[in-house]
Amino acid sequence: MKKGKLFGVGVGPGDTDLLTIKATKILKNVEVICSPRSAKLKPSLALSIVQPILDERNEKYDILDPLFPMIEDKSALNSYWDLAAEIINTNLSDGKDVAFITLGDPTIYSTFSYVAKRIAESGYEIEIIPGITSFTGCAAAAGISLAEKDEIVVIVPKVDDRLKRIMEYGDTFVIMKTSRHSEILEEIVNQDNRDKSIISVQNCSMQDENVFEGFSKDKKYLSTTIVKFRDKK
Amino acid sequence: MKKGKLFGVGVGPGDTDLLTIKATKILKNVEVICSPRSAKLKPSLALSIVQPILDERNEKYDILDPLFPMIEDKSALNSYWDLAAEIINTNLSDGKDVAFITLGDPTIYSTFSYVAKRIAESGYEIEIIPGITSFTGCAAAAGISLAEKDEIVVIVPKVDDRLKRIMEYGDTFVIMKTSRHSEILEEIVNQDNRDKSIISVQNCSMQDENVFEGFSKDKKYLSTTIVKFRDKK
Repeated sequence: MKKGKLFGVGVGPGDTDLLTIKATKILKNVEVICSPRSAKLKPSLALSIVQPILDERNEKYDILDPLFPMIEDKSALNSYWDLAAEIINTNLSDGKDVAFITLGDPTIYSTFSYVAKRIAESGYEIEIIPGITSFTGCAAAAGISLAEKDEIVVIVPKVDDRLKRIMEYGDTFVIMKTSRHSEILEEIVNQDNRDKSIISVQNCSMQDENVFEGFSKDKKYLSTTIVKFRDKK
Repeated sequence: MKKGKLFGVGVGPGDTDLLTIKATKILKNVEVICSPRSAKLKPSLALSIVQPILDERNEKYDILDPLFPMIEDKSALNSYWDLAAEIINTNLSDGKDVAFITLGDPTIYSTFSYVAKRIAESGYEIEIIPGITSFTGCAAAAGISLAEKDEIVVIVPKVDDRLKRIMEYGDTFVIMKTSRHSEILEEIVNQDNRDKSIISVQNCSMQDENVFEGFSKDKKYLSTTIVKFRDKK
């Protein structure tokens, strides 16, 4: 019997038109869409992005929506990922192809990697479909280049001491999910005395997208700050 | 009279199916496609990627193919960019929309930024359409994640002392165009005694794509090496 295949599909930052042709082809053909939720009653943003594509389908499809809560407890998280992998495995074993959709790109800070490891151990075929990352989406929205010539770009998911230590060695810094730590970020960035520009983007490529100079201070979840230093150390 | 608009369109790493829906819509509607060539007789890779989309068009379009040679001389380069901006300006002034196509993403090491600055100075509207970057394309091809949890990703366009200095502060390093400097790269990477994995991708997402462990030693132009360190300093 034919075994199913798992696709990790990057759906980009928010605008459905930022899906790739390849992603839309897969989303129109797989039997099962897997779209994790962060809370029991919270609708999935990734699912809302691909919904217009799914609405064009004639054949039915199933939706798996495993719960991936935003918690720090590693062993609890492992149980959630185990459970998700188990449900996906059952579908693959039944010969159904599964598209696991993920915001941005599946290889950049995505829960897809944890689930994919488990599915790979079970021996199923996996293919990753790259997506538009939030940071190139943000740079496009802000109308700036992230890097030119020999510039080094650093992508940092968390505002902490490691950012402080690496700062003097890079030219452009993309700091993700910045709203919750904007004061500390401002302090770290201002300790570097190079000439710099700071731009933040909230809800990139969505209808309420907001691009502005400076740090992102209100607690919107999807915010990214880009710091560009103009002279090299 | 209506003025034209300049679109910077990222066409991704090589596979036409990695174009976004947004990019295809623009490519089917603009009056002019601008696709720089690196040599007089060399066909443009970006143009070959979008050709299947252009072939679906009913209306005619013009192609501008300014020469952007791969030289280091800054003042000579500036003249080439000035010339390209001038031709684009003429088209915009005639009310024609222009799509400047660029491999990967227009905000990451793209000549688009140099031309866009000049067009912006002339007061025309510019919109950037993000594309799949070569490094997420490479990670997808290799079936690996670039970053998980708190990991810091560093993107480096050149193998030199700056890479050496920043290395101990990051977790994943994406080094672009590595073939020409693979020996020095290997030396720098091996000086770091952390446990690591090294994967190179040549001609990502193209028909002759080649993914392998270790460094990329033959002189193919489009090669990228991903170094992942497993333990943090």
